[in-house]
Amino acid sequence: MVRVHLYTGKGEGKTLTALGLAMRSIGHNRKVIMVQFMKGREDVGEFKVQKKLRLLEIHQFGRKGFVDLENPSKLDKKKAKKGIKFANEVLKKKIDVLILDEVNLAARIGLISEDDVLDLIKKADKKTLIILTGRDAPKSFHKIADLITDMREIKHPYYKGEKAKKGIEN
Amino acid sequence: MVRVHLYTGKGEGKTLTALGLAMRSIGHNRKVIMVQFMKGREDVGEFKVQKKLRLLEIHQFGRKGFVDLENPSKLDKKKAKKGIKFANEVLKKKIDVLILDEVNLAARIGLISEDDVLDLIKKADKKTLIILTGRDAPKSFHKIADLITDMREIKHPYYKGEKAKKGIEN
Repeated sequence: MVRVHLYTGKGEGKTLTALGLAMRSIGHNRKVIMVQFMKGREDVGEFKVQKKLRLLEIHQFGRKGFVDLENPSKLDKKKAKKGIKFANEVLKKKIDVLILDEVNLAARIGLISEDDVLDLIKKADKKTLIILTGRDAPKSFHKIADLITDMREIKHPYYKGEKAKKGIEN
Repeated sequence: MVRVHLYTGKGEGKTLTALGLAMRSIGHNRKVIMVQFMKGREDVGEFKVQKKLRLLEIHQFGRKGFVDLENPSKLDKKKAKKGIKFANEVLKKKIDVLILDEVNLAARIGLISEDDVLDLIKKADKKTLIILTGRDAPKSFHKIADLITDMREIKHPYYKGEKAKKGIEN
């Protein structure tokens, strides 16, 4: 079976753990593709670092602004569905690590269906590591994951009113 | 005040989050130094990826094998103390991100003292981001951290008896 890692919870470290795994894998000369849902900003550190790492590819399937979680737009859904289609295409090639970033929340709010993700995982090569990130992961994702970490937020500077700092939170 | 991130708990993702932050920072052309305590293996992915990233430096202050947590050796302590000394030296230079990997556990089991770490943080430049990782972080670290995530292990393939896989767990 495919190995599936699930990183969820409200705390900092979900996407970052995926990026850390990407880094570790690239150290071992493995190819990593990250598909980002609900995100569309090329000024983030992970997007910029691509230029320095031949084995990393990041593809974004979201708009620049935040998605209205209660009432996502048609464009948000359209973009997320494109992300799933792209991920399916990518899995046909030989690929070591596929990161589906923010996919948990995207499924939770209905931008894509849970089955979109479960089907994709079923079809994937056994050797491909698939990483799912995002808070509020659906139960069906918990069920099929081999490793799950719940990132619990204990303290966050956000509460003190600090703004995001470049290279740390983006 | 220096910005301090603390990643603790038993779940996967502490060192990986630090590596992810490193990657994001490097994307913004920031210099990252990781000091690894209790670790001394050059075959791990993060150590190998250094060759591909000019802005990343990893320095290990541990032996190859595991540290006996109940009864750490003199060599383990000596190496960890060297790590603290090195980190103090490094902070004198202009550095954007300093990762003290596994430092929480190193302090918890007495390889170094909590004050070694607290003093180091006090002396650091305000602009330096300091990241502390490792399970069982001492209370004093919780107190001074600006951001804390507790990585809770929900499911781990270790329980199914799988061995570590290259590029994933090391």
